[in-house]
Amino acid sequence: MFASPGFTPPYTVSGRSALVTAPPWHYAGWLLNIAFGFDAARGADLVPPSIGRTIGRMTGQGCMHFADWQATTDGSELLDPVQAQYRETIVVLEIERADGSRCGICPAIWVDQDVSMLRGLLQGWPKKMGSTWLTRSLPLDHPAAAPLRAGTRLGASLAVKGRRVIEAEACLTGAAGRPLGFLAMPTLGVAGLPDLREPARPPELRLLRADIAQPTTSGWHAASASLRVFEHPREELALLGELQPGDASAGWCGLTVVGARDA
Amino acid sequence: MFASPGFTPPYTVSGRSALVTAPPWHYAGWLLNIAFGFDAARGADLVPPSIGRTIGRMTGQGCMHFADWQATTDGSELLDPVQAQYRETIVVLEIERADGSRCGICPAIWVDQDVSMLRGLLQGWPKKMGSTWLTRSLPLDHPAAAPLRAGTRLGASLAVKGRRVIEAEACLTGAAGRPLGFLAMPTLGVAGLPDLREPARPPELRLLRADIAQPTTSGWHAASASLRVFEHPREELALLGELQPGDASAGWCGLTVVGARDA
Amino acid sequence: MFASPGFTPPYTVSGRSALVTAPPWHYAGWLLNIAFGFDAARGADLVPPSIGRTIGRMTGQGCMHFADWQATTDGSELLDPVQAQYRETIVVLEIERADGSRCGICPAIWVDQDVSMLRGLLQGWPKKMGSTWLTRSLPLDHPAAAPLRAGTRLGASLAVKGRRVIEAEACLTGAAGRPLGFLAMPTLGVAGLPDLREPARPPELRLLRADIAQPTTSGWHAASASLRVFEHPREELALLGELQPGDASAGWCGLTVVGARDA
Amino acid sequence: MFASPGFTPPYTVSGRSALVTAPPWHYAGWLLNIAFGFDAARGADLVPPSIGRTIGRMTGQGCMHFADWQATTDGSELLDPVQAQYRETIVVLEIERADGSRCGICPAIWVDQDVSMLRGLLQGWPKKMGSTWLTRSLPLDHPAAAPLRAGTRLGASLAVKGRRVIEAEACLTGAAGRPLGFLAMPTLGVAGLPDLREPARPPELRLLRADIAQPTTSGWHAASASLRVFEHPREELALLGELQPGDASAGWCGLTVVGARDA
Repeated sequence: MFASPGFTPPYTVSGRSALVTAPPWHYAGWLLNIAFGFDAARGADLVPPSIGRTIGRMTGQGCMHFADWQATTDGSELLDPVQAQYRETIVVLEIERADGSRCGICPAIWVDQDVSMLRGLLQGWPKKMGSTWLTRSLPLDHPAAAPLRAGTRLGASLAVKGRRVIEAEACLTGAAGRPLGFLAMPTLGVAGLPDLREPARPPELRLLRADIAQPTTSGWHAASASLRVFEHPREELALLGELQPGDASAGWCGLTVVGARDA
Repeated sequence: MFASPGFTPPYTVSGRSALVTAPPWHYAGWLLNIAFGFDAARGADLVPPSIGRTIGRMTGQGCMHFADWQATTDGSELLDPVQAQYRETIVVLEIERADGSRCGICPAIWVDQDVSMLRGLLQGWPKKMGSTWLTRSLPLDHPAAAPLRAGTRLGASLAVKGRRVIEAEACLTGAAGRPLGFLAMPTLGVAGLPDLREPARPPELRLLRADIAQPTTSGWHAASASLRVFEHPREELALLGELQPGDASAGWCGLTVVGARDA
Repeated sequence: MFASPGFTPPYTVSGRSALVTAPPWHYAGWLLNIAFGFDAARGADLVPPSIGRTIGRMTGQGCMHFADWQATTDGSELLDPVQAQYRETIVVLEIERADGSRCGICPAIWVDQDVSMLRGLLQGWPKKMGSTWLTRSLPLDHPAAAPLRAGTRLGASLAVKGRRVIEAEACLTGAAGRPLGFLAMPTLGVAGLPDLREPARPPELRLLRADIAQPTTSGWHAASASLRVFEHPREELALLGELQPGDASAGWCGLTVVGARDA
Repeated sequence: MFASPGFTPPYTVSGRSALVTAPPWHYAGWLLNIAFGFDAARGADLVPPSIGRTIGRMTGQGCMHFADWQATTDGSELLDPVQAQYRETIVVLEIERADGSRCGICPAIWVDQDVSMLRGLLQGWPKKMGSTWLTRSLPLDHPAAAPLRAGTRLGASLAVKGRRVIEAEACLTGAAGRPLGFLAMPTLGVAGLPDLREPARPPELRLLRADIAQPTTSGWHAASASLRVFEHPREELALLGELQPGDASAGWCGLTVVGARDA
């Protein structure tokens, strides 16, 4: 075993081709957040006892986030946006810890860029590839603009390997909204990967909490929403049963990940 | 020869699966526009005499547009944004007509959705598939947000079949900008497709001008910009030689195409 | 109206950037063909009277083709295969003409490259973009190779805009198979596009039959198959009702399109 | 720290949504292999001392592989080939170890499916996403088929984030070929990822050698080849300088990874 010269593979002298460079990682994006209720007992299939017992009791509350992100490390990605932009669907389930505090845990998340996928795995977010679409709100009065005002309707969807897994619709109420899901509570990652030398041995996992800096939002815009989850042969979200959409909000937010600690 | 029951293929009874439905087509998007100068003589390779003579004389001015669009017909696409959103790179070259008026002509344009490609061909915009990336400006004060203020830098690129063809950078000046390219002058399409029964006979072409309704903008933000074009075995933009970037602007705009007329 | 210097847009002097060049177009690929029966009356929704009456009576027989193509004009595309390769799902419905002869008509077809999409529209094949996957048979004895022998199972699927529309499975019987669908009968295209100057006027359509040269196959391998079609908000294939899979075959074939004539 | 119930994230009870399941992993594909010489001293930029010293001395020989794979675990992926198929470009550099034996090391590799990317990282192959195209040889006598015979020409390319990084051409000689690169010598992985709790601490790396079972080929077909590498802002392959193409071969091969051991 020896030390690496870079942060992630490929491990070269310059580290220039490393897929991921060390934090800070700056993110800013447009998000649609839809809180939902579900049968708490069903969550145990997605967050198994060995993890769930460690952190607490499912509350039967969760949140779906659809995000159109822009991310950068040193600013260079914003000049070459194929390096910066990606879309993401995030599922967060709420847990009540022994001390009564609440946190989120992420049983499923999909992105469409490799950089984001690996950054997620390092944080304990179980990222896979998926295709997210999310209506944007443009500051225009035009039939295609979906401006931020009462009555504007937004849509969102996730497809994984060419099958639709989630679809959502939201209608802005015109009132102020609030942060939801991972925007409203600390959300823990479950980090760890198997050792291929011993494939039969379960990987050792560790709960992580990201250190966040520079959180900012444009303010949130409240919405009513609907949410559908479809069966998929290699996804398990449908195990949660019917989701009861609750509060929803849309808006822009920024945050910076500077590292992580044990949670 | 017989009449079709729908607007474009496939021609079914309901027309529901038609790739394109009849206008009006509503578009709203975020655009980066970069005017450029070039050697007017070189434009003749891209806009050949049979077309160019019809409309006038190249001025040696052009514009590159990078656009992140949202489009809808009856609003339904905004609820299922995989149907609504696409990205586009548009090249417009300016022509002076016999009467001294100026118009634009489009020698190259690339989109990433089939619906947009066929709508373009019907309008005489020579759309092919390409992958456009464009930094977005988010209303946040955050390192990843590229907010609308002096000093913010934006990037844009186009790749066609996995080769980079265009890349651009822009820096907002903080001043108000102005519309450029197709936003500033009528731009003509060259409509017409070959008849496969007589492949050796040149297609009959027709100059079209779209009828535009509901034009709107958020106001334009001035920028300085750089622009590079790369050789590509099946693209001809590099025939224009070196491009001298001029005025640039970024902002949101909306417009609606309701039809077209002879130009 | 004036003559074009090239075959398809963009119309430049050299024609080098034209999306499609004039035929001959050479195609070779690996195909899975699945014949199916359906309620002939339901076909009328997909092939409306104005077309259907022109050519005859639905027989209630059809065929689904999944294809992994390689196409070239002058050979250059085979040296840069991003220009040559694409995947396609083709639906063909059989018609009995007044003289008792049979032909096919294509109510739906999806490809994943722009060049193929436009070549299709010129031939009257109503191509849209879709994502086709098809198990390949490799000449190896290995668990991942799906070799050409009895008991080998193949899968195929089509997704359109992130929704699965068709899925199929096939199991090779070990017997020789036969050509099906467009491989077994002339299949007509319905060519024509609207004129944007008069969007309310139905496009004038024309039945075309491609002139095919150099047809060749590796021989077909018989299979049993299953076939499922799913509802999709902008596709109409599900209107055919339940499909009864019949004969199926897999193999390689080549053909060259040299032009088209009225049918 | 606690044990996981599954093999890779997401860690659920059933493990059904895990991106990767435990080996064996079966692979079969069509490959183009191009050996090349390069200035051995330049390899040190790609395989830094902390790794290179561990294993030996660069020989100035390497190999580029372009592969069109089909992979499966329990056979289910072959029935749903969006789960099975991916394309890959692999670079292997040869090392002479202290005992005079030779092995390969992989400084760069790109795939187009997430499952393959994570399987690679577990094996110590530094996979990122990239778009590989490779002409296929079909068993037909047709201009688009590139059949296996003297004079047939094949092309291959890799694009990363919309920029071409590698392109190759090969011409079959008609003679038998031989295995090259990772097909001809054991190739070591460099496994290990950073711990986000201590981002400044270099990850601990480990050399792995995969345990391979069921190797098989269709026989290799010799070719002459050319190879070009292009500069890319986030790739480092061009650091190798000019590559001198040597032997090349094309053909089908299968192999099964059952685990890995320290190397």
